[in-house]
Amino acid sequence: MNDLTQTPEMLIATMGARARAAAAQLSTASDAQKIDALRRAAQALRDQAPRIIAANARDMENAAANGLSPAMLDRLKLDEDRVLATAAGVDQVAILINPLGSVIDRQVRPNGMELSRVRVPLGVIGIIYESRPNVTADAAALCLRAGNAVILRGGSEAKESNRAIHAAMVEGIVAAGLPADAVQLVPTTDRAAVGALLKASEFIDLIVPRGGKSLVARVQEEARVPVLAHLDGINHSYVDGAADPDMAQKLVVNAKMRRTGICGATETVLIDKAYAEAPAIVKALLDAQCEVRGDEAVQAMDSRVTAASDEDWDTEYLEAIVSVRIVDGLDEALAHIAAHASHHTDAIITEDAERAERFLNAVDSAIVMWNASTQFADGGEFGLGAEIGISTGRLHARGPVALEGLTTYKWLVRGTGQTRP
Amino acid sequence: MNDLTQTPEMLIATMGARARAAAAQLSTASDAQKIDALRRAAQALRDQAPRIIAANARDMENAAANGLSPAMLDRLKLDEDRVLATAAGVDQVAILINPLGSVIDRQVRPNGMELSRVRVPLGVIGIIYESRPNVTADAAALCLRAGNAVILRGGSEAKESNRAIHAAMVEGIVAAGLPADAVQLVPTTDRAAVGALLKASEFIDLIVPRGGKSLVARVQEEARVPVLAHLDGINHSYVDGAADPDMAQKLVVNAKMRRTGICGATETVLIDKAYAEAPAIVKALLDAQCEVRGDEAVQAMDSRVTAASDEDWDTEYLEAIVSVRIVDGLDEALAHIAAHASHHTDAIITEDAERAERFLNAVDSAIVMWNASTQFADGGEFGLGAEIGISTGRLHARGPVALEGLTTYKWLVRGTGQTRP
Repeated sequence: MNDLTQTPEMLIATMGARARAAAAQLSTASDAQKIDALRRAAQALRDQAPRIIAANARDMENAAANGLSPAMLDRLKLDEDRVLATAAGVDQVAILINPLGSVIDRQVRPNGMELSRVRVPLGVIGIIYESRPNVTADAAALCLRAGNAVILRGGSEAKESNRAIHAAMVEGIVAAGLPADAVQLVPTTDRAAVGALLKASEFIDLIVPRGGKSLVARVQEEARVPVLAHLDGINHSYVDGAADPDMAQKLVVNAKMRRTGICGATETVLIDKAYAEAPAIVKALLDAQCEVRGDEAVQAMDSRVTAASDEDWDTEYLEAIVSVRIVDGLDEALAHIAAHASHHTDAIITEDAERAERFLNAVDSAIVMWNASTQFADGGEFGLGAEIGISTGRLHARGPVALEGLTTYKWLVRGTGQTRP
Repeated sequence: MNDLTQTPEMLIATMGARARAAAAQLSTASDAQKIDALRRAAQALRDQAPRIIAANARDMENAAANGLSPAMLDRLKLDEDRVLATAAGVDQVAILINPLGSVIDRQVRPNGMELSRVRVPLGVIGIIYESRPNVTADAAALCLRAGNAVILRGGSEAKESNRAIHAAMVEGIVAAGLPADAVQLVPTTDRAAVGALLKASEFIDLIVPRGGKSLVARVQEEARVPVLAHLDGINHSYVDGAADPDMAQKLVVNAKMRRTGICGATETVLIDKAYAEAPAIVKALLDAQCEVRGDEAVQAMDSRVTAASDEDWDTEYLEAIVSVRIVDGLDEALAHIAAHASHHTDAIITEDAERAERFLNAVDSAIVMWNASTQFADGGEFGLGAEIGISTGRLHARGPVALEGLTTYKWLVRGTGQTRP
């Protein structure tokens, strides 16, 4: 039961101190024990699926009464398949390669001291998320496997679902002999608790917001704790003059249309004026039911193309709309990308290796591709297993972030009595 | 000439936009060009030594008139030896191993896409520092070699010296064909400019404060830009029951007394009650002119020992004072360190390898040592060349930070037309 006189700051301080204590225990727990905890948590999720689905039904009922959009309702909904998929996700984290204890580098100094840098847990992670209740399990599993304690703060609309999933996770963790405080769920959906979490730099080492732009923007604005986040995915596919026409068409349509709502989707297609088959690409996009907003040259290619405004070049549509511009070669493409990209994922399509390497070198984005679909921008596709998020920041971790991004390192020095002269 | 109607925010925005443009140029400049720039800058420092020393004399005169302490005056002072040492430091950075372009890891996905993570410059670094004018050259050299633009904001007391050193650095940079804006010095010593710098997250990727605790604390409190800093070095040397007495005495005295003012100095000595030679260690510290503040057991060892208060266990003296406590074995030592250390550098002295490894594993500090002096906590001693600072934070870089800490990475994907299913 919550003490109603407790301020959000007091609540977070209490949870934070418990998380610090749990993190200290986790930092010396064996990997086998963490794997055992995840396996047991996955099994608890399966065993308690009926209870979790019943809790979700209550959330769904409230959400419908509160007029949530069909898209939001779909994100919130849990059925047996989704609970089993969530449990499978936890099992997946258990089979990832353990990042902890790995030696980043090692040297012996001239005086005989041996120095090594070894991966260790980051400490305490805060996750702030919206509607999707599976994040409760996904994020907890990743943080735990990397040896971190986690404080979860889910959305009010998923309150009951999150509690039920959290209870199953804790059951598995405790059964494996690890502290229940390793995974804590903020018990209130009071917005002030988010504010307290964002300022708790004494207790929290990293905040990861997972949700829409307004959530991420609020977190980045208010946080005093370091934040790992991405705001926009204004991604470009540049079709070079030396592109293979079949490949170019296939890649552009996939990059834009495979799933329009993910952050790796291409939003702007740049086409070299030297590329002869531009109209075929524009037609293929239109035929795939994509609205095309183009510059004058593109508008001239097909009557279905509408005029792009200045704003279009800075827009992350996340739907079946694309902006298309004809550019004067690689330099103009690079200048456009430098001016408009959000430093997420940008691609060149070309058979010219030299130009490709220039593009890979010059584009300052987390992911830069040559002859591949920007839709691959994903931790799973990169072989990292589940991802905690994709970072468009430059510090600590960039692009898809998984277990390694949830660790830090320490320097170990093994001497034989060396004193400093 | 400065426009007097310009606000600090306008000034920093102008400098920031120039720094971004310079950073873009630097990111594709060759390493040879950066090395050339550093060599020319070092030569310019040597050539302009008389002018730099004359500028410094004006600062020294003002500082003396303003009643700066002798210690501050010593930090500020430049003579020919110091200017030559500063130039040599810049030359040293030119011979460090280039971190840029190195491949962190590489894999080929089952679909044939090749993924690699490659080191690239961080972008724009802000350095906020006090009295020591050599930082103007040191920090600029490190940032430049790692491909970053830098905005320097030195202390008002070193204004003339910093301008003269900055002019020499820019001369070298421009002579090598790199943009002058790669190294900018904030032209005003108005404190509001620091505030604007700390909030300029659009233009600056990382702030490194170099100075006393009050500067670092202000930066950490106000910054909206990520900060790489260390606040305290409350470091421990733990003498285990199984320590070699000769080694223990030699290490403890070196760790505390070699230089008492550096952040790697030991501030608290913990001694296992099973260690028979504790009085000899206490005596050696006292004989080395160190004030010893001890618990009751330590006070009983020598009449010169005074009583340690609770506060002593949380104090970074940075002078010839040490706190000494007798503990009941490794576990109590670990508990004391967990409660009082500042996560900088802590050491165990023992011949028992098992206990040493337990200590190395359990202590959550940037640097953990076995049978070595904590005074080795230094980028130069770690083989990193010059250091930009020692970080006690957990994100991005921990412990001594040099060139690698001033870089980030990007993911390069080389495909052959792969689309995502």
